[in-house]
Amino acid sequence: MKPSLPKGTRDFSPDEMLRRAHIFDTIRTVYQRYGFLPIETPAMENLSTLEGKYGEEGDKLLFRVLNSGPVLDQVKAAGSATGMEMLTEKGLRYDLTVPFARYVVMHQHELTFPFRRYQIQPVWRADRPQKGRYREFYQCDADVIGSDSLLNEVDLINIIHDVFDALELGVKILLNNRKVLSGIAGVLGEQERIIDITVAIDKLDKIGLDKVNEELKGKGVSETAITRLRPLMELKGSNGDKLETLRGFLAASETGRKGIEELEQILSYLPNERQVEIDITLARGLNYYTGAIIEVKVNDDRSAFTSSICGGGRYDDLTGIFGLKGVSGVGISFGADRIYDVLEEIKGFPDFSTVSTRVLFANFGEAEARYCLGLLQRLRNNGINAELYPDAAKMKKQLAYADARKIPYVALVGTEEMKNGQVTLKDMQKGEQSTITFEELLHVLK
Amino acid sequence: MKPSLPKGTRDFSPDEMLRRAHIFDTIRTVYQRYGFLPIETPAMENLSTLEGKYGEEGDKLLFRVLNSGPVLDQVKAAGSATGMEMLTEKGLRYDLTVPFARYVVMHQHELTFPFRRYQIQPVWRADRPQKGRYREFYQCDADVIGSDSLLNEVDLINIIHDVFDALELGVKILLNNRKVLSGIAGVLGEQERIIDITVAIDKLDKIGLDKVNEELKGKGVSETAITRLRPLMELKGSNGDKLETLRGFLAASETGRKGIEELEQILSYLPNERQVEIDITLARGLNYYTGAIIEVKVNDDRSAFTSSICGGGRYDDLTGIFGLKGVSGVGISFGADRIYDVLEEIKGFPDFSTVSTRVLFANFGEAEARYCLGLLQRLRNNGINAELYPDAAKMKKQLAYADARKIPYVALVGTEEMKNGQVTLKDMQKGEQSTITFEELLHVLK
Repeated sequence: MKPSLPKGTRDFSPDEMLRRAHIFDTIRTVYQRYGFLPIETPAMENLSTLEGKYGEEGDKLLFRVLNSGPVLDQVKAAGSATGMEMLTEKGLRYDLTVPFARYVVMHQHELTFPFRRYQIQPVWRADRPQKGRYREFYQCDADVIGSDSLLNEVDLINIIHDVFDALELGVKILLNNRKVLSGIAGVLGEQERIIDITVAIDKLDKIGLDKVNEELKGKGVSETAITRLRPLMELKGSNGDKLETLRGFLAASETGRKGIEELEQILSYLPNERQVEIDITLARGLNYYTGAIIEVKVNDDRSAFTSSICGGGRYDDLTGIFGLKGVSGVGISFGADRIYDVLEEIKGFPDFSTVSTRVLFANFGEAEARYCLGLLQRLRNNGINAELYPDAAKMKKQLAYADARKIPYVALVGTEEMKNGQVTLKDMQKGEQSTITFEELLHVLK
Repeated sequence: MKPSLPKGTRDFSPDEMLRRAHIFDTIRTVYQRYGFLPIETPAMENLSTLEGKYGEEGDKLLFRVLNSGPVLDQVKAAGSATGMEMLTEKGLRYDLTVPFARYVVMHQHELTFPFRRYQIQPVWRADRPQKGRYREFYQCDADVIGSDSLLNEVDLINIIHDVFDALELGVKILLNNRKVLSGIAGVLGEQERIIDITVAIDKLDKIGLDKVNEELKGKGVSETAITRLRPLMELKGSNGDKLETLRGFLAASETGRKGIEELEQILSYLPNERQVEIDITLARGLNYYTGAIIEVKVNDDRSAFTSSICGGGRYDDLTGIFGLKGVSGVGISFGADRIYDVLEEIKGFPDFSTVSTRVLFANFGEAEARYCLGLLQRLRNNGINAELYPDAAKMKKQLAYADARKIPYVALVGTEEMKNGQVTLKDMQKGEQSTITFEELLHVLK
């Protein structure tokens, strides 16, 4: 019986774990720099919390957990559609946003608003697995809830800059505003088709203008509106140019003007070297954004990727679904798996040899091992990751182990070294070795 | 509709998260000191991996995940016991040991043996929830696989010492050996009742000698054997005394003598200040241990707890269930939830004010906020966690926010400070404030 994994799930081996920790730790550190605090929610949520929050398609992609107890009896009793509730009333977390909204409502009396939280946890989706798409993957979210101030958007954009600066990856940050999109739909006389229009516009990058227009037509958007929309879809130039065109187009729309004002305000808070690019084709499929919409794409000579690796925006009433009305929020989410793939592609991961073992003590037998244990404890007390090969195996085997584990140094302590209080240290990369004191050893390894 | 959580599951709020991170980070750092490398496995495993590994009781406590797709149709089709496989073929991880064994077998050709891995992840059990027992909880395991050397046991015991030294919690480390238990059963002529005897002995602490003897009798252990066992159950004194009594009792048992030798060997490798206590009543319910059995109990004047907070042992054929024979392993697991409760009880958590926000900049309006953004960026570039209150709210509200968030300093930057390039810093604990330069601010906050 050969063991296997459920499709769409993965093991992470030590090398991958260290690289992933590099990404998560970077994001976590930056979140904390901006005053965001960590929370965690359980993997299982009640289905009443999850269902109906992700659209019909999302409901189908929820992983449902069987009620515990005498399951077989339940299965028999559940031989009809009405039996479903007896069979399953819990599901696995589908994203971090809905559990966060549930958390805020349940803990509203303990929280200090504005509440800035971050959350780095796996989510599960019964999507068809394919390259780069998994059934279990991590999300890394930060949200501010309970403040309308655009300074929150500014913080989040600065966070994005800090994270990718720290990861040394070139990116392009795109900014839009749902009010601008609403204004456009209003001016076109297609207010009730705002969702159709934004969904179609969102695809411009992927399917091109003709296909987008076709889709708009199919949705019943008028020819006149499609023609008027065209110059906006092809909007080019600096942010200043774009804003000027928008100001003209949206002059008659109060909502549209408010959206422009918000864009201008955010841009004005950002220093020159941390600017973002206005992109009115950005809609991010999700319909719950009400203000800023943010998306980050790879923009690095070393990478062929142009995909989205981070996104977010403002939503005005996320907790309303759980009975807490009028609480505004804004948040972002980093796509750790995609960032991983890009950093792998550009060989952007640092050297982790200080994280894993720095030195392996060879094992020459019981007396030597006993002596080495004392040295090891002193090294470890000095914060150095060190190990003793557990068996008095052939030296070739022990060195092969150090090699496979990429341990940079092997310490050889035999009778002679024990007598002189010294250590023979072999540099595995250079192949050189020298006999030194413990203090010198400490110095080399630090 | 009031949202709720599935029973036995928990949210972790920021204060709890920081405390939990203190425990996890301590364990992680020590594991790495000893050359253990991290892995992660997916939350869902195939039921074929999980079932039959935890006994009949364990199978009942597995959380099963419904197959995705048209679930209702499956439910109808599954109106008989044979339909179960159509309904569910995945379950949530019940512990970290079986997924690790599965991992080793699947990745055996990429791994370097002896393989030292650690793993810190949640597990799920459909246990009846009660105080201190949850349906989702974290395990923190370390195992060495592919080496028979007792130096591995020594490393694990040193790890336990290091972790509780770092957490500043007094503990008692108990050590036993399955071979000693086997030897005892053999000498008593009850070899085939070794499991019954160890399970009963394991309860000595909880139910007392009389109840244990009753249980042994119930299992069919002879009166003679129970009488002969008595002095061993009441074994007292130093490790030396205990070993001497055991040497006498087990003189005729080869297995027993081997067990004594292993105990002696491990003790001899440990320095005086890091000793363990031999406890032959220790069996840890689990039947798969074949050599050393380790358990850690709280032993601290400040705590009323005496419960087990860490345990482990050697198992000889863990991967055999997945087709890889003859690979010996030894491991330990820290009970993070119990350690949390003990540290909470003794007020053993450090001050986390350096981890969360160090300084809040008050918001006096747009111009001041704009000015403060520059200062904030400089602080953050210096590794200081800092935030700006996002709205120009009343000062009382802003100070109340800092207070509730336990932010130690509030920076007040108005027209005067902007003109002079200074910051008025309010120490929230002392209530004092002084006007200082940015360099002085940096110095105070660092």
